Amino acid sequence: MLRELKEEVLEANWMLVREGLVRLTWGNVSGLDRERGLFVIKPSGVAYRDLTADSLVVLDLEGKVVEGTLRPSSDAPTHRVLYREFPGIGGVCHTHSKHATMFSQAGVALPCQGTTQADHFHGTVPVVRELTPAEVAEDYEGNTGLAIAECFREQGIDPLARPGCFQKFHAPFTWGKNALDAVSNSVALEVCAEMALGTWRLDPQQNGLPGHLLDKHYLRKHGDGAYYGQG
Amino acid sequence: MLRELKEEVLEANWMLVREGLVRLTWGNVSGLDRERGLFVIKPSGVAYRDLTADSLVVLDLEGKVVEGTLRPSSDAPTHRVLYREFPGIGGVCHTHSKHATMFSQAGVALPCQGTTQADHFHGTVPVVRELTPAEVAEDYEGNTGLAIAECFREQGIDPLARPGCFQKFHAPFTWGKNALDAVSNSVALEVCAEMALGTWRLDPQQNGLPGHLLDKHYLRKHGDGAYYGQG
Amino acid sequence: MLRELKEEVLEANWMLVREGLVRLTWGNVSGLDRERGLFVIKPSGVAYRDLTADSLVVLDLEGKVVEGTLRPSSDAPTHRVLYREFPGIGGVCHTHSKHATMFSQAGVALPCQGTTQADHFHGTVPVVRELTPAEVAEDYEGNTGLAIAECFREQGIDPLARPGCFQKFHAPFTWGKNALDAVSNSVALEVCAEMALGTWRLDPQQNGLPGHLLDKHYLRKHGDGAYYGQG
Amino acid sequence: MLRELKEEVLEANWMLVREGLVRLTWGNVSGLDRERGLFVIKPSGVAYRDLTADSLVVLDLEGKVVEGTLRPSSDAPTHRVLYREFPGIGGVCHTHSKHATMFSQAGVALPCQGTTQADHFHGTVPVVRELTPAEVAEDYEGNTGLAIAECFREQGIDPLARPGCFQKFHAPFTWGKNALDAVSNSVALEVCAEMALGTWRLDPQQNGLPGHLLDKHYLRKHGDGAYYGQG
Repeated sequence: MLRELKEEVLEANWMLVREGLVRLTWGNVSGLDRERGLFVIKPSGVAYRDLTADSLVVLDLEGKVVEGTLRPSSDAPTHRVLYREFPGIGGVCHTHSKHATMFSQAGVALPCQGTTQADHFHGTVPVVRELTPAEVAEDYEGNTGLAIAECFREQGIDPLARPGCFQKFHAPFTWGKNALDAVSNSVALEVCAEMALGTWRLDPQQNGLPGHLLDKHYLRKHGDGAYYGQG
Repeated sequence: MLRELKEEVLEANWMLVREGLVRLTWGNVSGLDRERGLFVIKPSGVAYRDLTADSLVVLDLEGKVVEGTLRPSSDAPTHRVLYREFPGIGGVCHTHSKHATMFSQAGVALPCQGTTQADHFHGTVPVVRELTPAEVAEDYEGNTGLAIAECFREQGIDPLARPGCFQKFHAPFTWGKNALDAVSNSVALEVCAEMALGTWRLDPQQNGLPGHLLDKHYLRKHGDGAYYGQG
Repeated sequence: MLRELKEEVLEANWMLVREGLVRLTWGNVSGLDRERGLFVIKPSGVAYRDLTADSLVVLDLEGKVVEGTLRPSSDAPTHRVLYREFPGIGGVCHTHSKHATMFSQAGVALPCQGTTQADHFHGTVPVVRELTPAEVAEDYEGNTGLAIAECFREQGIDPLARPGCFQKFHAPFTWGKNALDAVSNSVALEVCAEMALGTWRLDPQQNGLPGHLLDKHYLRKHGDGAYYGQG
Repeated sequence: MLRELKEEVLEANWMLVREGLVRLTWGNVSGLDRERGLFVIKPSGVAYRDLTADSLVVLDLEGKVVEGTLRPSSDAPTHRVLYREFPGIGGVCHTHSKHATMFSQAGVALPCQGTTQADHFHGTVPVVRELTPAEVAEDYEGNTGLAIAECFREQGIDPLARPGCFQKFHAPFTWGKNALDAVSNSVALEVCAEMALGTWRLDPQQNGLPGHLLDKHYLRKHGDGAYYGQG
């Protein structure tokens, strides 16, 4: 069942480790088969080196486990809500990567300071508010997904053009057209967060590159006019 | 003798290296068989790549070497005292990991700024005072353990819910239900110490996440209501 | 065709990865056969681990693809212009290495603070201005090369003695006598950029080493009096 | 000739790489056979992966090459002078490791802030002045050794108890009882320099641990009362 998707999600979870985005078991990636309404996710608390395609868990978009003997990632409800709220996405990634988590803990948005970020995010990466005690008590992980969707709706941000956010006091979430793309966006977010800390030491006023450079870099990689890569 | 415990302690010492928590021979892990009153610890000053299960040293809780031809870690008396003072623990870990050591050298406690720390520590990680000249002269390593126990007692901290500390001018100690758990707590402490330095550059006033998020994250991993992992 | 040059360019691209200068596909190296007027460059958006000598693309100095089935790096026009503007060079390297990119994003030049930089750069590494909207619209990558050449001409800098720059809001470019030399200069630039951030924390006024030390270190490695290496 | 010493010096040079203290060819280690008055050193500008015991160069304490077909490290005269000026040492190590080089570039001495440094250095690591134009012109590398010796003599520091220094505008030098010990001291210096930068962010006034802790840690590893390691 979903053999190809499982292989991709497995590879995406390993990429988290290879790229240095996770320590211990702090991270998870999922991938969606939107046609069938099923997504594949890492099991909870399992060491990355013990992961196999068969250990992955398949859920439907109501959150029911459809296949798998292990418990899914405790963050699975967040993934599920994001798949429902953001129709164009096919992968979700959550890490506690160090520099992106600093921004989350501080509750500071990341302006697009250069072309590295512009290649992945068409603008500032926003901060999503923390949940209220009532939201935590009711459904912590599901409501996390709703708070993310609320943030993008209220700030009028296209989630496909800015595929990530910092959840206040917690850590980053990113997404993408598939699981590997979601992880690539996590890599970019982590690197750009680290570079912003250094950029601000050199110039505390650096709050973004000019719009024509932002557009140029984002659009040479995304959309109809893209000419980066092998197309 | 204690074959299984030795294998776990060996693995835990290697995990220190794999996780980048030690340079040279600056670190040691032990594991306890509380029923027999024996603990297994790294020998002193031996390179990690030369460690074998047989090179580990077995001591009783009076500090007598029960098995092993090598001298135990010079910090063994600290481990021994912690096992006696903190009845619920089964592993102790000491490193000079870089960022946790910065907090130790500066004598600054680490508030729980986010969910990464809350997964392992139910609150602030405290600073333990340095020893007096008399304490150093009498029994440096044993008195280090007593100073740690004194700190937790005086501040009313449950050592099981906050399994670690920074010893002033020295470095961190952590503990856990077994040797591997103690090392995991060292990893978390090191990462959270590093992230705090960056978080404070972005928001110098960030002194902790709201209590309902602290409780939620700690309790989804610990205690009767835990639902993280494969339980 | 150009078998030896391809092997060197392949090795130089892998060196980028080994030296930790690239994440994802953010970087490219080329090497020139000046006699034939042909240069070999990485294909666009291809993962480093999938690179082979045969996947590299050969272009002439008008930018025409002469060999190769893949699209060349989107930055190929910048490389091409640099080969035309800087007659003595035989390799070009572009990365988004973290610390050099911080300087680019902040638009801060890097003074030669010590002998590490002096071994590779005979003085300050300059910042090249960002392109105007018209320049971006006309030929982004080609005009990037022209802006670099303009910077060195206007500031009277010999590009062979200071083989690199920071492009504002973007990232560093370096060059050298061949592809591997260009990568070595990128390594030096990245390390010196990182060290400058720390040096300035210790001494915010450190704006360069004395001239006699700068000359000594540069000249013991470069030119007729060089005595470093196996010459 | 000197087979065993060559193997140790080779291993010590590789340890530089393994410990992340060198990039490119920025570093060299030597080891001395004091009885014969000969030392073994890395050849100049040779990549670490190409080093073999046979490629190492043997010199006498007048600086004459006694064996080896390659040119010795350009820093060999500094090593030679240190062996002559510091009678108790048997190994010298020079790197451009990042954080120690920051201190060198800034010309800031490193106080002993904690037990990590106290295990290797019995106090502050000093800064050695830069050479004058005349000293550079006459014998740059040899005079570097003399400036180091002058610094220790004038400040009344025992070079065996504080086996290292920062040369202004340049980088660190360390030494030890043999080549591997010199490299261990370089590792400690690099780590302590990095930790000092973080310690000072947390407490800008931290200028050293109390004397009784400094003595305790240094003396539990060094001298007649040492009880660390397998003795």
